[in-house]
Amino acid sequence: MYTLYYAPGAASMVVHWLLLELGQPHELRLVDTGKGEQKTPQYLALNPNGVVPTLLVDGAPMFEAAAILMHLADTHAEPALAPKVGSAGRRGYTQWMFHLANAVQPLFRQWWYPHEPAGEANIELVKQSAAMRIGAAWDRIDAQLAANGPYLLGEAASAADFYMVMLMRWSRNMPRPATDWPHLSALAQRLKVRASFAQLCEREGLTEWV
Amino acid sequence: MYTLYYAPGAASMVVHWLLLELGQPHELRLVDTGKGEQKTPQYLALNPNGVVPTLLVDGAPMFEAAAILMHLADTHAEPALAPKVGSAGRRGYTQWMFHLANAVQPLFRQWWYPHEPAGEANIELVKQSAAMRIGAAWDRIDAQLAANGPYLLGEAASAADFYMVMLMRWSRNMPRPATDWPHLSALAQRLKVRASFAQLCEREGLTEWV
Repeated sequence: MYTLYYAPGAASMVVHWLLLELGQPHELRLVDTGKGEQKTPQYLALNPNGVVPTLLVDGAPMFEAAAILMHLADTHAEPALAPKVGSAGRRGYTQWMFHLANAVQPLFRQWWYPHEPAGEANIELVKQSAAMRIGAAWDRIDAQLAANGPYLLGEAASAADFYMVMLMRWSRNMPRPATDWPHLSALAQRLKVRASFAQLCEREGLTEWV
Repeated sequence: MYTLYYAPGAASMVVHWLLLELGQPHELRLVDTGKGEQKTPQYLALNPNGVVPTLLVDGAPMFEAAAILMHLADTHAEPALAPKVGSAGRRGYTQWMFHLANAVQPLFRQWWYPHEPAGEANIELVKQSAAMRIGAAWDRIDAQLAANGPYLLGEAASAADFYMVMLMRWSRNMPRPATDWPHLSALAQRLKVRASFAQLCEREGLTEWV
């Protein structure tokens, strides 16, 4: 049994999406990040990092959105969203999951929390630099999709694509949103037409980029 | 057969370390990052991100150090450095691998490349902020080890510990190195006494924190 601590549109969104896509029953617990509920002692006892998501798996907390995706996709084999360990596709799958987690998502942290790297006085500089480096990441990934798409692993969608589409959504109000890149845009369209995406947007009350 | 593109002490170090620990034959190819060899067209054809490591697995390139660790530890079951998919320990293992990749290593990028977030004028501010946030990460991880150690997964070492010890080494010249935290320091000691670590340092010509 799963319980997801989430905030609408935050990194918890892709975990929520995968639970819907995999047809896994789950309870939702809203974390009001506007009120700082992610920093309360009760929440920190579940996730000392003070961020969403946290997923309770049979009562035990797990954090890190990308890790939760890998766990869910490995645990629930249908529909297949993760190549199995030992299969030809697993290497690329693991690579792209970590590339998004290590090289792309952290740039969005700079975009969303631009005071962190260099203080309030440098917010605009940090946002400009983050936008530029995120654009460079989209350049590289779009080239990958052009050569080996339409999904990150080729012909079949995986949890890595769901993760990337969430990151793409985060770019919607940037000077150059990810949908400016043709192969990224096509990939997002393929995933956004799934019933799980409409359900997700409705449940989280999302109205932009839906 | 493995071929590792590496630079001494860089993120390739933990891949090299794991290859030694797992007893896997491999060829080393030095990438002279001082000369910018990671940005040559030849290297970018292997790894468009222009960073080390790249591991050739039977001739096919793979990037992202943490992904390579997971791949190697899953592929070579002895010595066991990754709980198997479906086992009780896999969830925590995946969580810690991604926590290091998503929340800790990117802060080191700000420490090593402090001009990136806000330009040359703000290098000192960025380094101070990165050091502070890295310290907060060590606080949380040291508390985890105190409660559930001595390793990240408890009684047994995993690839996640090797990865963390590399990140700890990167903090050696920071105002407060990771070894200031007692449980982190004890964990590093446990891994540094392995024969593979001495071999690694000798092969990469490392002289600090050996």
